[in-house]
Parts: sequence; C-alpha cells; structure tokens
Amino acid sequence: MSDKLSFLVFGAGSVGSVFGWRIQVGGGNVSVVCRSNYEAVKKSGLNINSDQHGKHIFTPNNVYSSAKEAVANGEEYDYVLVCTKVLPSYGDPAVALKPIIKSNKTSIILIQNGIGIEEPYAREFPGNPVIPAAAFLDSKQLKDGTIEHGNHARLTFGLYTDGVLERDEEYKKCGESALKAFDKILISGSVGSTIEEHLQRSRWFKLIFNASLNPISVLSGQYSANELVKNPGTRELVKKAMIEIIKAGEAVTGGPLDDKVPGSDLPDQFVKYTETRTTTIIPSMLQDYMNKKPMEHEVILKIPIEKAKAAGVEVPILETLYELLVMNEKKNLQ
Amino acid sequence: MSDKLSFLVFGAGSVGSVFGWRIQVGGGNVSVVCRSNYEAVKKSGLNINSDQHGKHIFTPNNVYSSAKEAVANGEEYDYVLVCTKVLPSYGDPAVALKPIIKSNKTSIILIQNGIGIEEPYAREFPGNPVIPAAAFLDSKQLKDGTIEHGNHARLTFGLYTDGVLERDEEYKKCGESALKAFDKILISGSVGSTIEEHLQRSRWFKLIFNASLNPISVLSGQYSANELVKNPGTRELVKKAMIEIIKAGEAVTGGPLDDKVPGSDLPDQFVKYTETRTTTIIPSMLQDYMNKKPMEHEVILKIPIEKAKAAGVEVPILETLYELLVMNEKKNLQ
Repeated sequence: MSDKLSFLVFGAGSVGSVFGWRIQVGGGNVSVVCRSNYEAVKKSGLNINSDQHGKHIFTPNNVYSSAKEAVANGEEYDYVLVCTKVLPSYGDPAVALKPIIKSNKTSIILIQNGIGIEEPYAREFPGNPVIPAAAFLDSKQLKDGTIEHGNHARLTFGLYTDGVLERDEEYKKCGESALKAFDKILISGSVGSTIEEHLQRSRWFKLIFNASLNPISVLSGQYSANELVKNPGTRELVKKAMIEIIKAGEAVTGGPLDDKVPGSDLPDQFVKYTETRTTTIIPSMLQDYMNKKPMEHEVILKIPIEKAKAAGVEVPILETLYELLVMNEKKNLQ
Repeated sequence: MSDKLSFLVFGAGSVGSVFGWRIQVGGGNVSVVCRSNYEAVKKSGLNINSDQHGKHIFTPNNVYSSAKEAVANGEEYDYVLVCTKVLPSYGDPAVALKPIIKSNKTSIILIQNGIGIEEPYAREFPGNPVIPAAAFLDSKQLKDGTIEHGNHARLTFGLYTDGVLERDEEYKKCGESALKAFDKILISGSVGSTIEEHLQRSRWFKLIFNASLNPISVLSGQYSANELVKNPGTRELVKKAMIEIIKAGEAVTGGPLDDKVPGSDLPDQFVKYTETRTTTIIPSMLQDYMNKKPMEHEVILKIPIEKAKAAGVEVPILETLYELLVMNEKKNLQ
C-alpha cells in the first residue's frame, strides 16, 4: 500500500483538473471522477496548456465515471475535492458523495462558488472535516479533456466550524491536521496556498465578482464582463451591486472582506481590474446560459440574499437580479 | 368655414384612433397624421371593433402622411392630440410639431406615457396650452388600420403649469377654456373625461404599472404581465418595484397618487387586477422589444428615476431595470 495521500477529484473540469494535476505533481495519488469528459480523459488524460507551468499531460492514477466506480475496489480517500457546480434546486448536493465517504478519515474539500455550500455536507457527514475553499485561477476546458490555464493558481481554505452542528474537539483536531497536510502538498505542487481562519470572508470576497458581473452579464442581454465595466451605466450598476454584496458580507461574517483594502474601495478595484484585462471575460453564468445549462443562482444569489436579510442588510439589486435570472433560466432550459 | 372645433391626431395608432373617433362622434372635425398605417387608413379609414360601442369605420376628415401635409392648405387646429411614442433619445419630440403650431390658438394634448414629457413642448411653444393626459383604455392595432377596443375609454387631463417657464395669467385663462371645451366634446363622444388639477399624480399612477411590469416583462425573458404576477418570485419583485414608484411619485407630486386607495395598498390592487384578467397582457415595452422597435425607457424609467432622486427617494430596483433594459435594447436593435 502506498504511503502517499490519496485524493479523489469529484468533477474534473477546468478547475478540478488543474488542482488535481498540481497535487499529483506535489506527491499525491490523484484519481478523478468525470462526467461529460469521461471518454476523452480515460483515453488520453488531461491535456493542460498552462501559462504558469507549460504544456503537460496530467494522467490521473485512476479515471472513473461515477462515485460508485471510484470505491468499487474498496478505496478510501484521504481527501475528496468537490469541484462540481452547486445546484441545490436539483437536490441535496451532498448525496452524491454518500458512496465515497466510508469513515471520518476522509476530508471533504469544497472548491466551489457561492455561500452556504458547506451546510449539506456538514449535515450528511457530521464527523468528516468539511473544508471550504476559495479558488483563484483562470482556467477553461476548451474541449473534453483539453484545459487552458493562466499564470497563477491559488487556493484559500479553512475548516468549517459553524453551521448546523456543534463541532467537538475531535472534529477540530482532525480538521486542523487535514488542513496542514493539504497545505503542504499544495505548496509542493506550486499552488499558492493559504489556510484562512475567516474563510467565509474569502468566499464573500469572491462573491463580489460572482454575484454582480455574473447575473448582469446574462440579464443585460449577454455582454462580457469587459463590456459591462466599459459602459458607464452598467459600470455603475455593477458597482452598486458590489456595494450590496460587500455590506452584506461584512455584516454576515462580522469583519472586513479583505485585510488590506477597505470595503468601500473594493468595487473600484474589481471594476478596474476587469477593465484592464486584455482577454474577454465571459462570466460562468453567461457560459452556462449560452450552453443552455443551469446556472448557480442559488448559492451565488439566493442564499447570500437570505443571509444578508437575516443580518439586517437590504439588497434590492441582488433580489432583482435573482428573480429575473430564475425566470430567464426557466425559459432558457425549456 | 365650419364652426366645429378642429382636431389633429398626431399618430393614429390604437390609442389615437379610438379617441379621434370618439371626438368626431362627439362633434369635432378630426384629421389624422399616420405613419406606418397611412396607406391603409387613406384607403379604407379605421376599422374599429369596440366592445363598448360595436363595430364602426372611423373616417377621419383628412388623412395625412406628415405634419407638413396637415397644414399645406393653411389649416390651423384648435387641438393637436400627440399620440406617438416618446423617444427623447432620438431627438427633441416637440420638433415634429413645429410645422403645425402657428399661433397660441392651438392646444397641445399629450396622450402619452411617462414623466417629464411636457417640458420639451413648453419650451418650444411657450404660449400654447400644454395639456398632459393619462389615458385608460384597452386597445390594439391588429393590422394597419384595424383596431380592437375594449369596454371603456377614459381620459384624465389637466393644464401643465409647472416646468421650465413661468406661466402667466393669459396662458392659464386660455388653458382653462381649452380644457373645458375638450371635456365637453369628450363627454359628447362617450369618453369618460376628468379634468384633474393634480394631473402629475395620475401620470405617476399610470407609471405604477408601466415602470414595473413593462421592463420586467422584457428582462425576465419575455413573459406576459399575467404570468409575472402568477409566479410568486416575480410577483414580489413587481410589488417592490411598484412601491418604489409610489414613494417616488408621492414625494415628487407632494400628495397621494390615488384619492381613495392609500399608496401602501396600491401594489396589491394592481397585481390583483392583473391577476384576474382573462386576456393576455403583453406590456407595450415587450411588444416593442419583440418587434425590434425602440422602447420608451427614458420617460418611463430614466426621467422618473432622476425626479425620484432629486426628491430624495432611492429607487435601486428601477435603476437596475433601466440599465439592463438599455443594454438589451442596444443588442436587440443591432
């Protein structure tokens, strides 16, 4: 038996593939569960063209087509990296992991967008460390099994301790050591790694972009993020939506969303960053909309709206975007 | 020379045709300026199928294809009824009337949606009574020259006295007598007629529907008003948008928008009225959008938003709808 740590990447799309690859490079035993790209990955692995690391083929230790298959030979993983889209309206997301999680040994790392994503896992697997992460990288699956990656990859993560259940000392102890081992292997694989106590702040920080430019790119009639921040009217709208998210995030998490930049300066920073980008940024919701796929509006808008209101923050722009988005999706998926 | 009052309906679409017809029945001499439906109306008049009055052919005294043609024989009208769409982004709307207005004799009646529509006319024709009106009727042009009309037609109107210029006694005196003569002929033509001192309140009242259901019907992905109020999420959004309009209208006009129903009850009343309608209501903006025509977002959203903010009322939902609508139109008209 190998003394390597074992990882299962659940959802080997553009994000899961890059992190899985770097973890393998860093010394992990990395298997993947694929859905739409299974045939391609099984046959030829993942072809990754990375600005940061050059052209490589990432050959996972095993390629599976389902959770069940991934444990058919009695495997038990140290870490499951959940990299799928979060669509709670289609059912409890944690159910998909049920075949995989056999004991408290396995840590569940959620590399996903949105807010409130941990609760279903904490409910379903109360003894397993749940580790939400905020990923910062540019990556794109050009076609099944072919990934383009930009010049950086960073992961900020922390142990989920709040939520529906009381977390005991044992949970925290296991969790802390899982964080450390994960941090170590990421660093070995040249991924920027940060263990963050206030992880929810990082998640709300990511939401500043995701809950504003994502829905507006769809609802404005399909414009790129670059176009939206160039046009004065939508630039202001984007900034106003960002202010709602920042105020909500600060109230919900009880602190600033960024250590260095004050909340009031963040919208300008995000908008200017987007403006100076030379590549066209098609937000993920617009990609999904154009591909007639469900969008992640529940964890990116609905749950944040609920949490904002519970914390006493009004978010009328986000509410408007959410309701319009749901109706558009209904027609789009017909 | 006839001693009948003379009317020129500028824009004989579904609204202008019904009022022009009833004014002729009421004893007026009614000519029309047509655009897209000129050939049909010139040849066969306007075929109106009215639930209220039965089937009739309205044959205008004269049918013209332009403002210039309408005054080619030296005509001077007592009233010009402006029934065109209001699209200030395409240029000053008052300019179109320049050939028609020769002296202060002519009153300008604006049967149009939105807020702030009087200002261009008051600026261009400072001596002519400007009479904004709020029309309440169901009517639709099925094809060029063929109009369907429901079971009622009501016009609320008043003299425009605020705005960019000081209004002197002479203006008010002329205006008052123009209002009275207009009221009389409407009543003779079986149109519900109300001279309203606080006319701006009636205009904001109409806006409760127009600035909420109109843009939301486009931005939600093309749903009828009936569908929007049936779906719980958009029903709430529509009501929240209505609350913004009501608060803004009350602040701008300095009084309640309805004499009987308090502002806080109006959203429910509008929504319930829409819900119980058995016919499908396609708001005018959605009709325009589907026909790839410009929408009246300036007078229905932009100017009301500016006036709301000047009166200290925040309208984040309306601002969101406006910016999204402008971007959608840009793409739609490409």
